Amino acid sequence: MTEDRVFSKLTPTILASLKEIADDLNVLTGDDCESYSRDEAPHPRHSLPEVVIKPTSTLMVSRILRLADQHHIPVTPRGAGTGLSGGAVPLYGGISLCLEKMNRVIEIDEANFSATFEAGVVLKDLCSAVGEKGLYYPLYPGEMNATIGGNTATNAGGMRAVKYGVTRNFVLGLEAVLASGEIIQTGGKFVKSSTGYDLTQILIGSEGTLAVITQVTVKLITPPGSREILFVPFNSLDEAIRCVPMILKENILPVTIEFMCEDILKLVQEKSGKEMPFKMYPAYLLLMLECAGEDEFLTLTSKLNDICLRNGAPDVFVPGSESAKRRLLEFREQFYPTMQHCHMLDLADVVVPRSRIADFLDKVKVISLKHGIDVMAYGHAGDGNVHLHPVGAPETDPVRVQLLLKEIYSAGISLGGTISGEHGIGVDKKQYLPLAFTPAKIELMRQIKLAFDPHNILNPGKVI
Amino acid sequence: MTEDRVFSKLTPTILASLKEIADDLNVLTGDDCESYSRDEAPHPRHSLPEVVIKPTSTLMVSRILRLADQHHIPVTPRGAGTGLSGGAVPLYGGISLCLEKMNRVIEIDEANFSATFEAGVVLKDLCSAVGEKGLYYPLYPGEMNATIGGNTATNAGGMRAVKYGVTRNFVLGLEAVLASGEIIQTGGKFVKSSTGYDLTQILIGSEGTLAVITQVTVKLITPPGSREILFVPFNSLDEAIRCVPMILKENILPVTIEFMCEDILKLVQEKSGKEMPFKMYPAYLLLMLECAGEDEFLTLTSKLNDICLRNGAPDVFVPGSESAKRRLLEFREQFYPTMQHCHMLDLADVVVPRSRIADFLDKVKVISLKHGIDVMAYGHAGDGNVHLHPVGAPETDPVRVQLLLKEIYSAGISLGGTISGEHGIGVDKKQYLPLAFTPAKIELMRQIKLAFDPHNILNPGKVI
Repeated sequence: MTEDRVFSKLTPTILASLKEIADDLNVLTGDDCESYSRDEAPHPRHSLPEVVIKPTSTLMVSRILRLADQHHIPVTPRGAGTGLSGGAVPLYGGISLCLEKMNRVIEIDEANFSATFEAGVVLKDLCSAVGEKGLYYPLYPGEMNATIGGNTATNAGGMRAVKYGVTRNFVLGLEAVLASGEIIQTGGKFVKSSTGYDLTQILIGSEGTLAVITQVTVKLITPPGSREILFVPFNSLDEAIRCVPMILKENILPVTIEFMCEDILKLVQEKSGKEMPFKMYPAYLLLMLECAGEDEFLTLTSKLNDICLRNGAPDVFVPGSESAKRRLLEFREQFYPTMQHCHMLDLADVVVPRSRIADFLDKVKVISLKHGIDVMAYGHAGDGNVHLHPVGAPETDPVRVQLLLKEIYSAGISLGGTISGEHGIGVDKKQYLPLAFTPAKIELMRQIKLAFDPHNILNPGKVI
Repeated sequence: MTEDRVFSKLTPTILASLKEIADDLNVLTGDDCESYSRDEAPHPRHSLPEVVIKPTSTLMVSRILRLADQHHIPVTPRGAGTGLSGGAVPLYGGISLCLEKMNRVIEIDEANFSATFEAGVVLKDLCSAVGEKGLYYPLYPGEMNATIGGNTATNAGGMRAVKYGVTRNFVLGLEAVLASGEIIQTGGKFVKSSTGYDLTQILIGSEGTLAVITQVTVKLITPPGSREILFVPFNSLDEAIRCVPMILKENILPVTIEFMCEDILKLVQEKSGKEMPFKMYPAYLLLMLECAGEDEFLTLTSKLNDICLRNGAPDVFVPGSESAKRRLLEFREQFYPTMQHCHMLDLADVVVPRSRIADFLDKVKVISLKHGIDVMAYGHAGDGNVHLHPVGAPETDPVRVQLLLKEIYSAGISLGGTISGEHGIGVDKKQYLPLAFTPAKIELMRQIKLAFDPHNILNPGKVI
């Protein structure tokens, strides 16, 4: 909604005011801004901010936004920059507002199983802080260097959504700064509220376009038991996918159910030099269980063994030792690096109803053949989130890749899914949004954006 | 935000058009509108709609809204009218849009553990429909005759929030009609999505002020085991409340943790003629457990017994038989009817962080004495939601009651809580909203309202 808008440039006077608000120490200009021009998307659009500011307090954020709003200067909020959709790229220059210095643990409340963090706290620090109090934050979006603010802004998901859901399900409240500079508090240390519109939820996943999140209050749980793994081969992906509801119907709720196919396993073997630790089959489910103890593990494994064998699995592999478990997980962790070494042309994270994963990948195969571009796929069988990597020669025409992706997104949507399960729309997927949303819905989102940010200074050019 | 607005009245021409859209059969006028002038709030403001329409399809809802929007006719959506905050009262006349005839089960999807219902499906029908497929909807907001549309519009909570959360946590997607008549779909049969602003979540709890919800897709689970009860006495409410995190920290997650005090138990005995089935103590926790079998029940009971005795409980009562269990639950179910027989002056459902319940009730005691109005309290110790009933002579000055409530709400807010945990704001609590929200936050909500409903026809006079 911003392409036709001309933003103001930073004048020396405005820059001086910003330096006064934020202190010279927290302000970068010139070449120092280079690494704030992109995120970790495979082919990021580089776009230099005119200035990078690293605020150290909510009040500082408020004063920066008030000034930016007055002068119509674009502000692109940013956590650790680990996003994969170009969400943190300052498309229109202006201010890159990097929250990494706001990294204090505000409170860990043991009685209410909740904790409040500044937005710049990275997940690994969050987890160790709550762990010290005997509590646990169960989400694992895969990048422990990401910030809780960034996780919240993109509604990060990850491998444990089948049991625990996504960031949205664990955020109880926020402190955020509106474009006007007003500081708002939303939600609180409670799960129940029917008091006005849920501003917490509308801010989660809004990718910095509605407000700057400065603090996040999350729900905590008690630590789960040990994590155990089953690696279950199938003769087809279809059989693997059809086994998933059979497991869940027996009242077993694994923390993770991933699917993977022979093609990617072979590619990982070839590229990483690591040996796939089990016999090769056309498809696999990787199940991770949380067990209170050995007894529960044995009961669950025996039940799962029966269910999987009854539903077509020729075998069930249980890594017998900690080192075998680690070997398998390390092999799994090679997927993304392998893709990176394969000339990844783009990156999609479509979500479909979990029963439709095999149908979706059948369609993807046809689309891939039609466009002559290989697409590697793996992902979360428990929640329908499929990671897709078109791979090919670096010189592949980007227009061909876009056409391929357009058809892949349309296929997912036609099966009841949507464009992004966890990475967000950012700038990279914005062109595909009209495939999923009617013009009325996009117009409604534009109106919501204007309700929060009338001058459209916050992360312009993103999402809608 | 509507007090200064003059709505149009229904002209005979508009009424004729509405009858053409909705069919005469689905339109009530005159005296037939009487029971649509209120909900179940203790002292509802009666306000007659000019017409009641019972649409039978989403398209019909769309055509009605389009016409109403053109002519600036207020529309008050309504489910079963079981709300407790006056949310369904057509304050400005116009159309009462009652969704009770839209009561079809659209789909129960066993593979994806989800189901889609028209908004007018009542909870008891929803539960039996999913039960027939071996699935389960675990929320229990207490009124099985309420509709799923109404539950969604108010983000209904109930007794099982400590384990399962609230309606918000079980709704995956919606079909809704905007004020303009545009039909939108939000979410889908998946838990993971980072695709644009979460319109599902902003509509949940918006009490019919942003759109008319016509279909709701919910998440389902497998049926839990049997439900067992422990009734644990304490020598003070403070000790009872302090025991709650001790239970949760031991990795026991009861489906329900209620607290109740001697005063209300005695009152129920006196008014209902039912005998309290256990020895009287100053305070109690009622714990409900879901157990996979007898073994788990014995393990949990023994663990809970230890935890409670270690934390000050003089005893732990376990109703030994189904009939003893039923007697206890029936006694608990007398709370609200008892309040109704006590000249309930109003009704509040404040939520505070659960560790602050005892502090909150200490403050309520002081406020109650100051104003000379008794306040009975009980509620959900697991989630901090406290039901408060000021009781007294019917002729009590309503201004005194308002002053009392204002101080009660302020006390809850000062402890980190908010006004309504589950009943919603409706019209009855609207005057108290500025106690919880800053002017900037209320203004933001107004702007969101206008983004959805520029002519302010949807449930005007409610929430903000």
